[in-house]
Amino acid sequence: MKPKETESLDATRHSLAHLLAMAVRELYPGAQNAIGPAVENGFYQDFDFSNAHITPLHSPLGRGEKARGVQISDADLPAIEKKMRELLPQWKEWTKKEVTLAQVKKEFAWNAYKMELAKEFAKERKTLTFYVCGGFVDLCKGGHTLPLAEIDPKSFKLDRLAGAYWRGDEKNKMLTRIYGLAFATKKELDKYLTMREEAERRDHRKLGQQLDLFTLSEQVGKGLPLFTPKGALLRELLNAYSQELREKKGWQKVWTPHITKSELYKTSGHWDKFGGELFLVKSQETKDELVMKPMNCPHHQQIYASRPRSYRDLPLKYMETTTVYRDEKAGELLGLSRVRCITQDDSHTFCRPNQIEQIYQELIDVTKTFYKSIGMQIRARLSLRDQKRPDKYLGEPKLWEEAQRILLKIAKESGLDYFVAEGEAAFYGPKIDFMAVDALGREWQLATPQLDFVQPKRFGLTYTDETGKEQTPVMIHFALMGSIERFLSVYIEHTAGAFPLWLSPVQATVIPISDKFASYGAKVKDALVKENIRVEMSDANETLGKRIRAAELMKIPYILVVGEKEEKNGTVNVRRYRGGQPSSAQAAAGEDGEIKLGQLTEKIRKEITEKQYEI
Amino acid sequence: MKPKETESLDATRHSLAHLLAMAVRELYPGAQNAIGPAVENGFYQDFDFSNAHITPLHSPLGRGEKARGVQISDADLPAIEKKMRELLPQWKEWTKKEVTLAQVKKEFAWNAYKMELAKEFAKERKTLTFYVCGGFVDLCKGGHTLPLAEIDPKSFKLDRLAGAYWRGDEKNKMLTRIYGLAFATKKELDKYLTMREEAERRDHRKLGQQLDLFTLSEQVGKGLPLFTPKGALLRELLNAYSQELREKKGWQKVWTPHITKSELYKTSGHWDKFGGELFLVKSQETKDELVMKPMNCPHHQQIYASRPRSYRDLPLKYMETTTVYRDEKAGELLGLSRVRCITQDDSHTFCRPNQIEQIYQELIDVTKTFYKSIGMQIRARLSLRDQKRPDKYLGEPKLWEEAQRILLKIAKESGLDYFVAEGEAAFYGPKIDFMAVDALGREWQLATPQLDFVQPKRFGLTYTDETGKEQTPVMIHFALMGSIERFLSVYIEHTAGAFPLWLSPVQATVIPISDKFASYGAKVKDALVKENIRVEMSDANETLGKRIRAAELMKIPYILVVGEKEEKNGTVNVRRYRGGQPSSAQAAAGEDGEIKLGQLTEKIRKEITEKQYEI
Repeated sequence: MKPKETESLDATRHSLAHLLAMAVRELYPGAQNAIGPAVENGFYQDFDFSNAHITPLHSPLGRGEKARGVQISDADLPAIEKKMRELLPQWKEWTKKEVTLAQVKKEFAWNAYKMELAKEFAKERKTLTFYVCGGFVDLCKGGHTLPLAEIDPKSFKLDRLAGAYWRGDEKNKMLTRIYGLAFATKKELDKYLTMREEAERRDHRKLGQQLDLFTLSEQVGKGLPLFTPKGALLRELLNAYSQELREKKGWQKVWTPHITKSELYKTSGHWDKFGGELFLVKSQETKDELVMKPMNCPHHQQIYASRPRSYRDLPLKYMETTTVYRDEKAGELLGLSRVRCITQDDSHTFCRPNQIEQIYQELIDVTKTFYKSIGMQIRARLSLRDQKRPDKYLGEPKLWEEAQRILLKIAKESGLDYFVAEGEAAFYGPKIDFMAVDALGREWQLATPQLDFVQPKRFGLTYTDETGKEQTPVMIHFALMGSIERFLSVYIEHTAGAFPLWLSPVQATVIPISDKFASYGAKVKDALVKENIRVEMSDANETLGKRIRAAELMKIPYILVVGEKEEKNGTVNVRRYRGGQPSSAQAAAGEDGEIKLGQLTEKIRKEITEKQYEI
Repeated sequence: MKPKETESLDATRHSLAHLLAMAVRELYPGAQNAIGPAVENGFYQDFDFSNAHITPLHSPLGRGEKARGVQISDADLPAIEKKMRELLPQWKEWTKKEVTLAQVKKEFAWNAYKMELAKEFAKERKTLTFYVCGGFVDLCKGGHTLPLAEIDPKSFKLDRLAGAYWRGDEKNKMLTRIYGLAFATKKELDKYLTMREEAERRDHRKLGQQLDLFTLSEQVGKGLPLFTPKGALLRELLNAYSQELREKKGWQKVWTPHITKSELYKTSGHWDKFGGELFLVKSQETKDELVMKPMNCPHHQQIYASRPRSYRDLPLKYMETTTVYRDEKAGELLGLSRVRCITQDDSHTFCRPNQIEQIYQELIDVTKTFYKSIGMQIRARLSLRDQKRPDKYLGEPKLWEEAQRILLKIAKESGLDYFVAEGEAAFYGPKIDFMAVDALGREWQLATPQLDFVQPKRFGLTYTDETGKEQTPVMIHFALMGSIERFLSVYIEHTAGAFPLWLSPVQATVIPISDKFASYGAKVKDALVKENIRVEMSDANETLGKRIRAAELMKIPYILVVGEKEEKNGTVNVRRYRGGQPSSAQAAAGEDGEIKLGQLTEKIRKEITEKQYEI
């Protein structure tokens, strides 16, 4: 969308907030409208209903005039919306009028909120203005360019209610906020509603419960999810693949504990920057000042430092999938998106400057392969330093230039979809941020290979070069999924829980149409088990339809129905569940028909081995 | 050793402490002897040398009579030992003499320690006795049955010096303690010395450094080891096998975070019992009272509790290898034996009472298979409740009886080497403690399947039985290695770092006798890599002998030497390193001779796949 269009849409949204105020005041005389701006996707208007009453015409529920102080609910929104549409045709022209505080008082003596604002503006010697449209007067700073009556009456919609403190201060009165949605066309509004509904359908918290992937326990605490067998398997398969790709290129696993003396982060410099986000650990037996690790780089540097290193030992490639802990605000914790236990598929590489290119090439390869296998597109942001502010960055300028040149070169040569973001580098080095695009078009920053010219110096890491001189290695931070918990929240929503076959906790379920075919069903199951396919068999307590529906609810990729014909032919009847893409929002298993048992196991094995993404 | 023999050996050891006191006082007049008891493997005697001087005869270093206050060192022990042997023939008969405090004072006025003890004894109205032998008088409570002169003069040996506070109180003066070793025969003394030397050779802290398995960092903290790539691989291979054996029998991995609200341990009952050993975690952002988990059972119970369960769902078999944290006293921390981060290959099974037998059978199978593969013998201790104190235990008596009956039955039927220990059960259920015996004959308690009738009740866990009634499941705790860190400390010492092939971080190294054969060496290496064998190639910077020696120091199982003959014949010359057993303390690689490359890879593959234990 172009800036000009956005501007005009914002003006429409703001105008709709005025219209909403008028509609409410007609239906609920005495209601005081406070502020009403345009926001993302629409607008809102705040009201104080405590002196309002309901007009007799609008009182079908018997709430009569005597009721002073009204409590509205979502059920009242359609009537308000209807009133807005009734009034809309009269909202043809905007009149702007500069007024004095006395004039405001004359018009708004009944409205404490408008008066408070007007007095404040007057004190600040701001011009006070009324904006009038359709006979409705409001104190307003303006921004109404178009005659509202020209918009499509179906392009807006009231959305929901919320409580909001006057001026956002919890010491003030709680007002009633009415949210509305508004777009340039009805089509765009509908598209937004569909996407939102789809996002709700894909909510990872709901799917996590439905698919039995993880659970939260009041007794364990907020932001500390527990993974059930299916969820733990999903984590493990993803992580095994993430590490396997790097192992093939020479990365080696290391292991470090979750607590450490805080001294370590004082040396690394993290303490000053992230001290407030650290969980402090109190030893009852010693005087050690301990913390839970919020990152692994200092630990891996201690392993590097455990022996003298020569240029021949480099690159040293360490990886470790381990959980770090960060003390997030309780209000910000949400499902798996925002947690206090963050499992990183982390790695740290120590290399000579002339090895940076090779390492980056390897990490980009790994990233491309991984995200392709899981069916997500990636874009790369090259975060370079701000050329006008070289003082903001640590490390030798020559090293920076060389490293940035390398990153640009590799990005081009690898055929990456990339863009350059100057000034987005970390203070200790440039980086590539990979953004994964999900099925709803949302972008997520996940993998981030990051150069670090600073930390190795702080820890005094060295290697002996070809001439016997001591040099400082360059460090490259890299995690492929980043936080596995956050990654899963994105990935569950991307796939709507219909994971590619290789990641599905249960890959196939055998459903005999009746008890009579249970023994053939068991034979089918055994054949799949022999091929290491994760298969279940449903017992025949329920009707066939219900059992198929249950398997679909669990989004099991292969639903294998067997009966008389299948037993006779040595076949199974395959229903392949495909439910991941938004285009198939109503997805269910389609019948793929009869197939020989041997062919099926071969087909499934191939799909798993090749990590095909077919959902 | 029979009790009577032990008694007599203890008397000899105690007598030797007297003899030591006499020898020291002759060599260092003025030295005050304090106490001198028998201890395990020998005896000690404490001295205060601050008023001592050196006799002219014993002053070859020029430390003359004028030197008041002597500092002795280990180098002085042989001379003291020699003096003991000189005096020994005169120590024929013991005379016991009851004395008054005045008599003690007359004899020991010069010895502040003896006087302090004598005064105390007198106050407590104890009889004061002198024991005299070889002309040496000592204040002593007795215990000298045999004429010391009859022992083999070679059956004892002075061992080492240590500092020791008088009466063990750090407010008191630090005395010099001389330790001696003493056995019934010289042969036994030699055997002990050999074993001890072997144990030192096998010290896991030394081998951990030599083989580059783990490191400790001052900045990370005590008891918090970091595992380097080779050590991390060892952990991973052991754990993968431990989990694989259980996975085959239906255990499923789960994942839980390392911190939790302390409330969880208040419910489980651990707080009261282990509260002081917990690391407390302080959140700076919330008011949550958090701790690091010291065990996983409550977490796994939260997963159980996340859904309603039916009798058909049981047994539910969860396993998780995760690190728990315990706040050990700083003074007790030692290498990997005693750490603050304890990684458990844990599992918790929830079952119906009539499933206990099956689960135990499976866990015993797993234990037998695992310990056989790693080459350690196991014995089982059946820890049952004290029949005379049924009040000490929680849970229904009927359930206890039935469970104990089952444990005994399984122990018999499985052909386990077991013994019964009444009164050793936990208060919440009976258990089997598996003791692994290491190469030095030391026993270690490792795997422990443990029944729990109590915790599931505390957490209110239930399942619906066949009749629709709510029942409480039985829980079975089980870890195969227990703490992986502690297990590794035992296992590194058991194998002396010469791990079985399947566990060796590097399984083979190719050594071309000169640069000329580097390309054939590379071909050999590639053939092994193709078979997923972990292989290195040594470059030819050093002499052949040095390179072979370096590979032996790293205890690499297959050392493959290639030269002209091997290249011509398509073979390698194998030196198989075997160094694990104490009988082969001086072990090094023996030449196994020439073998076809294809045969070798097949042989190695087979040895790995079958997890053969040949060290």
